[in-house]
Amino acid sequence: MALKKKPVTGMKDILPREMEIRNYVMNMIRETYGTFGFSAIETPCVEHIENLCSKQGGENEKLIFKILKRGEKLKLDKAESEADLVDSGLRYDLTVPLSRYYSNNANELPAPFKALQMGNVWRADRPQRGRFRQFMQCDIDILGEPTYLAEIELVLATTTLLGKLDFHNFTIRINDRKILKAMAQYSGFPQESFDTVFIILDKMDKIGLEGVAEELEKEGFAKDCIDTYLGMFQEITSDIQGVRFCKDKLKDVLDPKVAEDLETIITTVESVKSADFKMAFDPTLVRGMSYYTGPIFEISMDEFGGSVGGGGRYDEMIGKFTGNNTSACGFSIGFERIVMLLLERDYQIPTKNGKKAYLIEKNMPADKLLKILEQAREERNAGTQVNISIMKKNKKFQKDQMNAEGYTEFVEFFRDKM
Amino acid sequence: MALKKKPVTGMKDILPREMEIRNYVMNMIRETYGTFGFSAIETPCVEHIENLCSKQGGENEKLIFKILKRGEKLKLDKAESEADLVDSGLRYDLTVPLSRYYSNNANELPAPFKALQMGNVWRADRPQRGRFRQFMQCDIDILGEPTYLAEIELVLATTTLLGKLDFHNFTIRINDRKILKAMAQYSGFPQESFDTVFIILDKMDKIGLEGVAEELEKEGFAKDCIDTYLGMFQEITSDIQGVRFCKDKLKDVLDPKVAEDLETIITTVESVKSADFKMAFDPTLVRGMSYYTGPIFEISMDEFGGSVGGGGRYDEMIGKFTGNNTSACGFSIGFERIVMLLLERDYQIPTKNGKKAYLIEKNMPADKLLKILEQAREERNAGTQVNISIMKKNKKFQKDQMNAEGYTEFVEFFRDKM
Repeated sequence: MALKKKPVTGMKDILPREMEIRNYVMNMIRETYGTFGFSAIETPCVEHIENLCSKQGGENEKLIFKILKRGEKLKLDKAESEADLVDSGLRYDLTVPLSRYYSNNANELPAPFKALQMGNVWRADRPQRGRFRQFMQCDIDILGEPTYLAEIELVLATTTLLGKLDFHNFTIRINDRKILKAMAQYSGFPQESFDTVFIILDKMDKIGLEGVAEELEKEGFAKDCIDTYLGMFQEITSDIQGVRFCKDKLKDVLDPKVAEDLETIITTVESVKSADFKMAFDPTLVRGMSYYTGPIFEISMDEFGGSVGGGGRYDEMIGKFTGNNTSACGFSIGFERIVMLLLERDYQIPTKNGKKAYLIEKNMPADKLLKILEQAREERNAGTQVNISIMKKNKKFQKDQMNAEGYTEFVEFFRDKM
Repeated sequence: MALKKKPVTGMKDILPREMEIRNYVMNMIRETYGTFGFSAIETPCVEHIENLCSKQGGENEKLIFKILKRGEKLKLDKAESEADLVDSGLRYDLTVPLSRYYSNNANELPAPFKALQMGNVWRADRPQRGRFRQFMQCDIDILGEPTYLAEIELVLATTTLLGKLDFHNFTIRINDRKILKAMAQYSGFPQESFDTVFIILDKMDKIGLEGVAEELEKEGFAKDCIDTYLGMFQEITSDIQGVRFCKDKLKDVLDPKVAEDLETIITTVESVKSADFKMAFDPTLVRGMSYYTGPIFEISMDEFGGSVGGGGRYDEMIGKFTGNNTSACGFSIGFERIVMLLLERDYQIPTKNGKKAYLIEKNMPADKLLKILEQAREERNAGTQVNISIMKKNKKFQKDQMNAEGYTEFVEFFRDKM
């Protein structure tokens, strides 16, 4: 039989050691976010193709794993395009399904609703090291809370979690899509080209101020627009003064409340935080998805050269399903990156109970086996992990192997010594 | 926009209350099976279509959600059948992926290997009440242990778990595929029609002895075969005497060790068990899948008119991948049924820490909000679930709603009283 041993391209088998870390992180997530009042929910992994292709997903919509129609619905002979063959697909994020979920279940949910989702998503990205086509996402969202209380709680919950997982000295970069737009407007860019401007601005990290200037020129934007725009970025500091500068400078194009709220979010989080990190105002922060409408944020960690999570306010997406706008704000942590960093650090999970291996000589009579199992029962009931195996000829190898699995204590049972 | 609010046909959105129970059960599973030395692993939800259609899956192979090839691999104009369009699908069980996983990773795994898998599987069954097209399976398997130590440990682990989840008075029905075959052989049925005989025998629960006799006759089997066969079932008791009867009666067609081992499994489990259930020898137990090679078992619960789990030994499946047979034995509990039964009982999860709701008057000044958040920080760090919301006009409704979510303690904060 031509059975295949490897997982499908770009997906992976998870070995016990990684799984231990994953379960530890998942438990910590549930526990920590639980104390912030988030309730776990779940949506199916399979979603209507119409919802997945609703333009909310941006570039991800090109990466959907599509599922073939079944039975009579599949008319292969009449199918002219891919779209005729499929009616569903694997979700590529948890935000689109959350919007559908909320519109379907709002009557049975409290308002505001604080949702915690942990689940796999699938994207047919080009496979590369450390990036997989199936990966876990972990989102918290507050639906129905229009004030900055939502942003503050999301950032506090996320950073408390990271602190508990032993991450320190990271930065939460924060901006507001309204400031982003006001800066472009103030500089004189035409409204319809904002998206183009932001795509270029988003590269600031990589290509620097001069690179951004060059690319904006290449797009044909006026020199004085570009100069005004980039001049501001040079003046804005990453602290509260930077936010105040924007409030003042952009007063003709920006509601001052936007800057005031951002200031409150930053100062409040800085005062209440229980982890070791800093908040930084970053006017170059764009966040790819066009659905964001207010504050946006991202976690930067030196240990990892990039973002390990982000989120923001998206007050208009749920309205696409329900017809009524519902304020919404979410924060997603990069679960896979966090697990990867912990694995690289060889992170030791704090455990309460020991791991013990019982090695039993071959052909142990049933009455003696019974005694061994009774002993194991008592230890297991007390919480000890007891792994019972038949003793092998190469006992040393067997013990070494079990040692690698974390079994440090061995108890041996022989037929004649019981 | 034509967005769809309902989940795709046959799949469901999971609300917070059910999710709490699910997470509780999952934690109990990880904890309990952990004490028995099982290690959690995971395989991708997407599996090669060749592996899914390898005839190991029986009827489930008709229910596969198939995934469209991507990019250049999809040649719609040349596709003549469904098979030309797909190269993968969603797994319909965890056993086929486990066999692939083991064949792919055996070098990095201990031997014997005790695996715990919890994960979703998908079957395009006709939707019906309480049955969904996406559902969680929970399997434990011991790979590389040829002796009955595997069966004993699997049954003890599973029943200990059920006891901890407050299930009592259930029955573990047990049989051996070798006894099943020996009985058919002893009665004179031709070897090639065993499967037909077993499919009919499997209906004993529903149609009774006479119904089975009738259907066997309809298939054209000889009257004396049928009489000998059904005569035995009337004589065999569901205790150890029944096993001994088989050993004696079938001595010309059955290795006595098969019956002896079965007796040891039953008596050992009965002596060591830490939950309240009984073992019953059931010679009519068939277990659908043809891959079973030795002992098979099933959990019967009066509360639920059917099986809430089962398993058995399948020593030949892994060889299909590796070329070398590896002994294997597994037990799968009906996760969804267990969750359903706990929900129906309105099961109260034991919790250590309280749930508190903070209600804050609207437009609370930032400095006062800070104080509230600091108070929340202390309570959250101590493990209390603190849910902070803005006070609504209809405070009574708001409190009632939060009460339904389990928040029993309310703390109110007013602008002028701080």
